[in-house]
Amino acid sequence: MATISFARGAPSLDIVDVEGLKEASRLAFENDPAGTTAYGTSVGYVPLREWIAEQHGVAVEQVLVTNGSMQADAFLFELLVQQGDAVIVENPTYDRTLLNLRGRGADVRMVDLEPDGISIDALKTVLGEAVHPKLAHIIPNFQNPAGYTLSAEKRTALLELAVEHDFTIFEDDPYVAIRFEGESIPTMLSQDDAGRVVYASSFSKTVCPGIRVGYLVGPQAVIKQIQTLATNTYISPNMVAQSIVNQFARSGRMDGAIETVKTNLKARKDAVVNALQREIPDATFANPSGGYFMWVELPEGVDVAELEKAAAQREVQFVKGTDFGGGPNTLRLAYSGVTPEQIDEGITKLAEALKSLGVAAS
Amino acid sequence: MATISFARGAPSLDIVDVEGLKEASRLAFENDPAGTTAYGTSVGYVPLREWIAEQHGVAVEQVLVTNGSMQADAFLFELLVQQGDAVIVENPTYDRTLLNLRGRGADVRMVDLEPDGISIDALKTVLGEAVHPKLAHIIPNFQNPAGYTLSAEKRTALLELAVEHDFTIFEDDPYVAIRFEGESIPTMLSQDDAGRVVYASSFSKTVCPGIRVGYLVGPQAVIKQIQTLATNTYISPNMVAQSIVNQFARSGRMDGAIETVKTNLKARKDAVVNALQREIPDATFANPSGGYFMWVELPEGVDVAELEKAAAQREVQFVKGTDFGGGPNTLRLAYSGVTPEQIDEGITKLAEALKSLGVAAS
Repeated sequence: MATISFARGAPSLDIVDVEGLKEASRLAFENDPAGTTAYGTSVGYVPLREWIAEQHGVAVEQVLVTNGSMQADAFLFELLVQQGDAVIVENPTYDRTLLNLRGRGADVRMVDLEPDGISIDALKTVLGEAVHPKLAHIIPNFQNPAGYTLSAEKRTALLELAVEHDFTIFEDDPYVAIRFEGESIPTMLSQDDAGRVVYASSFSKTVCPGIRVGYLVGPQAVIKQIQTLATNTYISPNMVAQSIVNQFARSGRMDGAIETVKTNLKARKDAVVNALQREIPDATFANPSGGYFMWVELPEGVDVAELEKAAAQREVQFVKGTDFGGGPNTLRLAYSGVTPEQIDEGITKLAEALKSLGVAAS
Repeated sequence: MATISFARGAPSLDIVDVEGLKEASRLAFENDPAGTTAYGTSVGYVPLREWIAEQHGVAVEQVLVTNGSMQADAFLFELLVQQGDAVIVENPTYDRTLLNLRGRGADVRMVDLEPDGISIDALKTVLGEAVHPKLAHIIPNFQNPAGYTLSAEKRTALLELAVEHDFTIFEDDPYVAIRFEGESIPTMLSQDDAGRVVYASSFSKTVCPGIRVGYLVGPQAVIKQIQTLATNTYISPNMVAQSIVNQFARSGRMDGAIETVKTNLKARKDAVVNALQREIPDATFANPSGGYFMWVELPEGVDVAELEKAAAQREVQFVKGTDFGGGPNTLRLAYSGVTPEQIDEGITKLAEALKSLGVAAS
């Protein structure tokens, strides 16, 4: 019996275009041996930087390509967040963001996340309490951990508040390309005419995580300062990896790879929804329109920490909602790394684990 | 007329095994598609970590593979060096090390470097002045910028001083494999039975710089703490790049690649020595037995800042010794990126530039 893991936000190997990566590697060393093997500069591999700038319709000077987007986050926090600075985050939010901000001694203010994104009313309440945030960290599409997407109206409202209250919006958008249905909503970056948005994304979800290529897009002055931090940290990010991504993108592999990911993840998401409705009908969740994750609320009184142990005995893993700032009856299910068959079996076992706790649904 | 650069410590493309890298990439994706494309952990790609541990004869738990050795340095400094801490460095030393330590607010103490390594007498004088360093940064082989190598006797003396005065030796050894002649001298790491040495090296000089793979070897407790810093910074370093290096190393390409580098760099070093003796006979330098660099002292009274301008007019570049903490009459010549023919022409022009300053040799 193999463990069924809903814990890790990572793709299974079957949805990674390994052949495409092999071909892109060959092209990287053949088409640009000098640029691929030499030191670059901290802005990243120049042709990939240009490709990203074109995708976002910005000047190349607004783009910095990094060793994964976590490293990009770390640079941005290093630049903008000092000990005691207030930072707005969503509640729940990505556990590593919480950890890094708290590690820097930030005054982290969690603001409720709703199915259409951060609560603007709750944010206004915080801003009215003489809190002057330096930064608001927002995951706009298919949020980690909740799977929720920020509405167009709330994007506009956030941009207005950022200008009014003089803070930077960190638009952290790694899942944007993995939309299953519905229309894409314009990024806050694309609507920012006040230099308030720094945008981050990566190729972890479209190419593969092991390639560790992420990037920032923002005002030139901010990117220039982060470039200095990057130079001092590592001189140059990984040119081999960035050259491979560049070939992958420019040889037309990217669109096909994204289609494969989307088709498979939609089937996995549907499998979770169907199995949950069948096996745990009193679970509450929003049906994600993209991404890797689903946020599940169990009836009041269910102790998810206990459920985690009971599930582990049945070789099923997930992450407790409390790790992300959520309530004791919440959990995150990642469906990116499990097949529909595994999902069906895993949710059935999760339901058994829940029943074993002997908690009556409220 | 193309610029002849003795400025950058980087290999020219003709001594990089591009075919070998292409082949290693293919093998990486074919032999371990899952490990190559997925997130790893912050210890690095496991088979490469094992290969490095074998090379150094240490436990795998003593090894951490990073995104280039600059990133390794940054983690080590973050762990060990706080504002105001005394740190010993060689004079002259690598300019980025100086920059990073000063950026952290370290109390940097430069100790004279001699052709057989750091002056133990001068170090004892500093240690006798109630300075309690946390760290001594030492580049033992073919030092950057001087090209000097630390003798076996001084390695032993340094280890004894580290124990006596309770500091860590940071043995920063990226050039070790590029020895042209003479016997290798055992690392301080291999003689350390008191847990005093943290060793760093990289594949930038043996595989290529763009691959950005470096590593640390040290006491398990130190490596464990740095592992936590690495996890918080980037979750996982570049698995694709580390898997390529692993295939390159294990398919027997590494030894041939190093032979190519050594043969070519020895010819380049000889060309510098011959041209200097012919064109600038009153220049003083030690003949390096390996590595990328040569340290040149011009007669007292020569202003190398002026020489730099005069050389630039003749399209010849080098780095002033003052950038590394050296005197105004010193300079660093990097011969890693120039052919013997370019070297001959470049040193001839450098001599012309020197004559144009109109300084009489002392």
